[in-house]
Amino acid sequence: MAGNTFGTVFKLTTFGESHGLALGGIIDGCPAGLTVDFDAIQAEMIRRKPGQSAIVTQRKETDQVKFLSGIFEGVTTGTPIGFVIENTNQKSKDYSHIKDTYRPSHADYTYQQKYGLRDYRGGGRSSARETACRVVAGALAKQLLGNISINAYVSAVGDLQLEKPYQDLDFTLTESNPVRCPDPAMAEQMEALIREIRKEGDTVGGSISCVIQGVPVGLGEPVFDKLHAELGKAMLSINAVKGFEYGSGFEGTRLKGSQHNDLFNADGSTKTNHSGGVQGGISNGEDIYFKVGFKPVATIMQKQEALNSEGALVEMQGKGRHDPCVVPRAVPIVEAMAALVLADAWLLNKLAKL
Amino acid sequence: MAGNTFGTVFKLTTFGESHGLALGGIIDGCPAGLTVDFDAIQAEMIRRKPGQSAIVTQRKETDQVKFLSGIFEGVTTGTPIGFVIENTNQKSKDYSHIKDTYRPSHADYTYQQKYGLRDYRGGGRSSARETACRVVAGALAKQLLGNISINAYVSAVGDLQLEKPYQDLDFTLTESNPVRCPDPAMAEQMEALIREIRKEGDTVGGSISCVIQGVPVGLGEPVFDKLHAELGKAMLSINAVKGFEYGSGFEGTRLKGSQHNDLFNADGSTKTNHSGGVQGGISNGEDIYFKVGFKPVATIMQKQEALNSEGALVEMQGKGRHDPCVVPRAVPIVEAMAALVLADAWLLNKLAKL
Amino acid sequence: MAGNTFGTVFKLTTFGESHGLALGGIIDGCPAGLTVDFDAIQAEMIRRKPGQSAIVTQRKETDQVKFLSGIFEGVTTGTPIGFVIENTNQKSKDYSHIKDTYRPSHADYTYQQKYGLRDYRGGGRSSARETACRVVAGALAKQLLGNISINAYVSAVGDLQLEKPYQDLDFTLTESNPVRCPDPAMAEQMEALIREIRKEGDTVGGSISCVIQGVPVGLGEPVFDKLHAELGKAMLSINAVKGFEYGSGFEGTRLKGSQHNDLFNADGSTKTNHSGGVQGGISNGEDIYFKVGFKPVATIMQKQEALNSEGALVEMQGKGRHDPCVVPRAVPIVEAMAALVLADAWLLNKLAKL
Amino acid sequence: MAGNTFGTVFKLTTFGESHGLALGGIIDGCPAGLTVDFDAIQAEMIRRKPGQSAIVTQRKETDQVKFLSGIFEGVTTGTPIGFVIENTNQKSKDYSHIKDTYRPSHADYTYQQKYGLRDYRGGGRSSARETACRVVAGALAKQLLGNISINAYVSAVGDLQLEKPYQDLDFTLTESNPVRCPDPAMAEQMEALIREIRKEGDTVGGSISCVIQGVPVGLGEPVFDKLHAELGKAMLSINAVKGFEYGSGFEGTRLKGSQHNDLFNADGSTKTNHSGGVQGGISNGEDIYFKVGFKPVATIMQKQEALNSEGALVEMQGKGRHDPCVVPRAVPIVEAMAALVLADAWLLNKLAKL
Repeated sequence: MAGNTFGTVFKLTTFGESHGLALGGIIDGCPAGLTVDFDAIQAEMIRRKPGQSAIVTQRKETDQVKFLSGIFEGVTTGTPIGFVIENTNQKSKDYSHIKDTYRPSHADYTYQQKYGLRDYRGGGRSSARETACRVVAGALAKQLLGNISINAYVSAVGDLQLEKPYQDLDFTLTESNPVRCPDPAMAEQMEALIREIRKEGDTVGGSISCVIQGVPVGLGEPVFDKLHAELGKAMLSINAVKGFEYGSGFEGTRLKGSQHNDLFNADGSTKTNHSGGVQGGISNGEDIYFKVGFKPVATIMQKQEALNSEGALVEMQGKGRHDPCVVPRAVPIVEAMAALVLADAWLLNKLAKL
Repeated sequence: MAGNTFGTVFKLTTFGESHGLALGGIIDGCPAGLTVDFDAIQAEMIRRKPGQSAIVTQRKETDQVKFLSGIFEGVTTGTPIGFVIENTNQKSKDYSHIKDTYRPSHADYTYQQKYGLRDYRGGGRSSARETACRVVAGALAKQLLGNISINAYVSAVGDLQLEKPYQDLDFTLTESNPVRCPDPAMAEQMEALIREIRKEGDTVGGSISCVIQGVPVGLGEPVFDKLHAELGKAMLSINAVKGFEYGSGFEGTRLKGSQHNDLFNADGSTKTNHSGGVQGGISNGEDIYFKVGFKPVATIMQKQEALNSEGALVEMQGKGRHDPCVVPRAVPIVEAMAALVLADAWLLNKLAKL
Repeated sequence: MAGNTFGTVFKLTTFGESHGLALGGIIDGCPAGLTVDFDAIQAEMIRRKPGQSAIVTQRKETDQVKFLSGIFEGVTTGTPIGFVIENTNQKSKDYSHIKDTYRPSHADYTYQQKYGLRDYRGGGRSSARETACRVVAGALAKQLLGNISINAYVSAVGDLQLEKPYQDLDFTLTESNPVRCPDPAMAEQMEALIREIRKEGDTVGGSISCVIQGVPVGLGEPVFDKLHAELGKAMLSINAVKGFEYGSGFEGTRLKGSQHNDLFNADGSTKTNHSGGVQGGISNGEDIYFKVGFKPVATIMQKQEALNSEGALVEMQGKGRHDPCVVPRAVPIVEAMAALVLADAWLLNKLAKL
Repeated sequence: MAGNTFGTVFKLTTFGESHGLALGGIIDGCPAGLTVDFDAIQAEMIRRKPGQSAIVTQRKETDQVKFLSGIFEGVTTGTPIGFVIENTNQKSKDYSHIKDTYRPSHADYTYQQKYGLRDYRGGGRSSARETACRVVAGALAKQLLGNISINAYVSAVGDLQLEKPYQDLDFTLTESNPVRCPDPAMAEQMEALIREIRKEGDTVGGSISCVIQGVPVGLGEPVFDKLHAELGKAMLSINAVKGFEYGSGFEGTRLKGSQHNDLFNADGSTKTNHSGGVQGGISNGEDIYFKVGFKPVATIMQKQEALNSEGALVEMQGKGRHDPCVVPRAVPIVEAMAALVLADAWLLNKLAKL
């Protein structure tokens, strides 16, 4: 119950610090009989890993996942799937300057206070490196979900907001640019902005939108475990996330009921989809879409004031290899967490009726 | 695992349909030795109940909670606290018209598909009446939390957005008007708008903001159970909620790191609070604040097209006693869910270190 | 996590003290579409209730269960099933003598130490009256299990041990005598012994055996949640239980592998069944059988030394209406707990493979 | 929920097959600030590992545990503790003969039926090798428990039953002989019996007793999670266990209440301890003692009939390196599981009262 497990029947438990020997996890509850596409899993790992382009951190992480159990001759056996990702490129010396110092807007201070000590190297458990394990499990969950497609993309960087509805986008273009924005013109602007911000030694926030298609009716468990509530928790558990909205979102709160209600077609589908594919916490078969907001990365390459363990304010110069904007690399993480939620809901729903 | 339990060690499990004999719940994990203020609990129930003013539904619900166990001579005993709220004013006949009809943007269709049948009277389990049980448990959680204060208030109705920061508001004014907006001038405008919307037979959405003060450092369990992720799930599990943001929220995603970072004071507090009182998923002692967006209520007093169980589109006239705007009555529900999250986190944190 | 919930996906959470307003519970996770036989549930309640014969306590408990939710027009809806059993015949005055006194081998002392206070009336939460809620849920679980039959019976009272294998017994005779032993001759001896013990103002222990037939292959989740481990926990959680063994049990530990191994028939069934229907924690389709040992009831009608809250040893005279032997009334409780375990395992197994 | 997690707040999740790359686990919920004695953990691993003496299997398993996270500079950090144990000495070829064959009284058939496929090498997940992970976590739990001592020992091999009460035994002698029986004379007889059985190519069952001393009053959560119910489940989840009894156990069921009740001393301790240190599911400060029965190992070095996947009965000759009697090696496993239960209960009890 210490917060390192996600899911109810399709469950991921993870461990690992940024600069320990390895990260890893256990996927428990994956049904037997799923033929595993290892290349597809590794491809997701590569999408997440640093150093892929000029606009992300130049840290090198091989991020090679090694499966230790639960898969026999390429097929899941119903037993827990253990995996590890070794930490091979940590430069622990880089972090000695933060041993006794709490960086602003990081988790240094709160971890120290909560636990009385912390592995300060690279942020330890609070490092975004932890999300590698989510991507492994999410990639497997995607395979379990079969024809359900999950497409996330960058929809905002700083003030650059992609206003086009997702229906006007071609998701096959998402991976065509380093920003992971499927609108090429906007992608170019975003990339330029990120390069500029990086030159300033600064960082900038952004948003990721996600669309889930091909979802059967009935996923999600009322009352507390509504499908969108689980999606919201999943997204908010990703480092740097500040907000979540689905369907019409905060804009929808300005509307009248007569504008917002989604009228039916005769086949049970709806003419509009302000509901975002979820009604009463249960999927209704329409596209699920939501937006996730990320704050700017806290580590900047400028001088800032930090607090040390003696209670003194000290000047600190950011160093290391960090992302000027987190959203391009967070796209596969958003997809992974969505896949975990859907896989769990899909299994649970098998028990809903006789 | 069917979604009717909330919390890890301070756990609420609820039951009940809108028009069944009773709703109720079990609070398990409340420590022994808490002297219960029953009047304070009932006061929260009164805040939530319908019929309090001209701008909310005129349904009469006495909403008298009866505790059945777990409290002896006014003090919690450590055993589970069972409670019921009888349904005394249901008018089941009002709902016969929806027996075979799925109302747009309700849970009728999804429940029917998921479970194969449904208690259609008044929305059954999907009715907002379910939230009465949350208020009971939340009111108890507030008492457990002692000096931690939780203040929610209406911060938007339709296009009327209260832009003032919470620091400029006087929370003692929240209950002074039927809208539950602590800014009297804005409250007046909001009330006028709601009255107008009601005359049109329509409904309108809105937002609730919430501020939690006096929180000790250390609450929240990384990685998946970050404090703000639990708050987000809690809020998104409330009927009609479409979005959640905390601290700087979606606006903060437009900022640069150099603008967004919260610099420390020497005592560990911070000069700004874009973090919203949570860093790395753990409370840092600053005020926690967040915003919750609610869609317009789906039941409108106008003719609308609905779908019947034979697959035909039929015209339907909304009737019954419904809220033209849900946010005034949702204020105590937001507070209750926040209290449940905090109580759970507060207990779990006692186990964080030796 | 305070221990009042049983099960993983078919979950029972209970509340209630012996002398509070009511006991009750919530069954969450029962699939929709089950037609409920209320008479069958009440019949189980009657089997459990006191005062049925001369050899059990003469307390009167109507034990009428009232369902509050989750069942619509006689069919489960997939929503939580809340129920209450009112306490109507409590004589709280009977228990005033134990307010400041800890009876030997009761839970008075441990509850007081753990929680700092206790509802002393009738044992409060530690009263066996709590098991009424288990019987309600178990009776529903039996209906979910369809053709799986669960037959428990008294197999020992004091030194009177029924040595016959269950295959030689006729379970239709179990209810033909007040002891609930399906061997009439042994039942008579047991009844005589219990009457004698009661005359002495004493109590005596005993054992219950249980046979589950018609179980499909595949129920039970290795590693920690082996089917027999869940059965064992279920039984050991019943008041007064001191031991659990299944299949060949403790006697089987004396055997050699060549004697103990159950050889196969060609259809996958086995020639012997020392395994007790479970291999590797998973049901193998053979009969599941186990034995549960109960200590003698601690409340005796003799003078005994007790401890008071001032730390003095005081003489105490047992009074009230108690069972001279607990096993006859515990038969339906054993069956109920077995049904809960099986229902949960049966549902979980639906998720084992694609 | 697929059964590979044990515990509520001190939680162990394990993975691994006998002949996969590695076994391992994650310990989540261990409080920060515990200085880890790695030698003590490895010492427990050595107690469990095969090949220690002539009377156990001669398989070589180095069983070197490697911790990957959650411990920094020798102290727990409050983050999850990941660990792996590599499989280095598997001889997969040994097991090719069971690929399409179900051995009697093994888990081959039930795994195949439940999951539709299985890793047949060495029993896969059903191998007792899985218990290595329990020993790792249990060894850490022991360190958390400080002065609570846990001593298990072999109390029966076949018909050789050690009748001495534990008070007459010297636990420092347990490790002085390969049987792990603290009574030297009995140990010698047991060793002779095991050697004889091994010569016959057969196996034999036995029992392990366990005594826990120094337990504070108050551990255990009524109703369903009674301390002895958790201990029972923990023990029954160990491979080959057929029965569990605590305190007076099955023998106690023959007694009268006047004989069985444990009268108090003035300090709250009791004159006798038929209760086995637990009353009402909560520890009362007296010694906790219980007995666990193990069936004979199913793999024998004799010809036996097995079932193949085509439904034919085939003769099979056991081979490989197996234990003639499982109990000597199971002693540290029993202790480990007891430690896990106690650690969890000890933490949970911190939340029992204000």
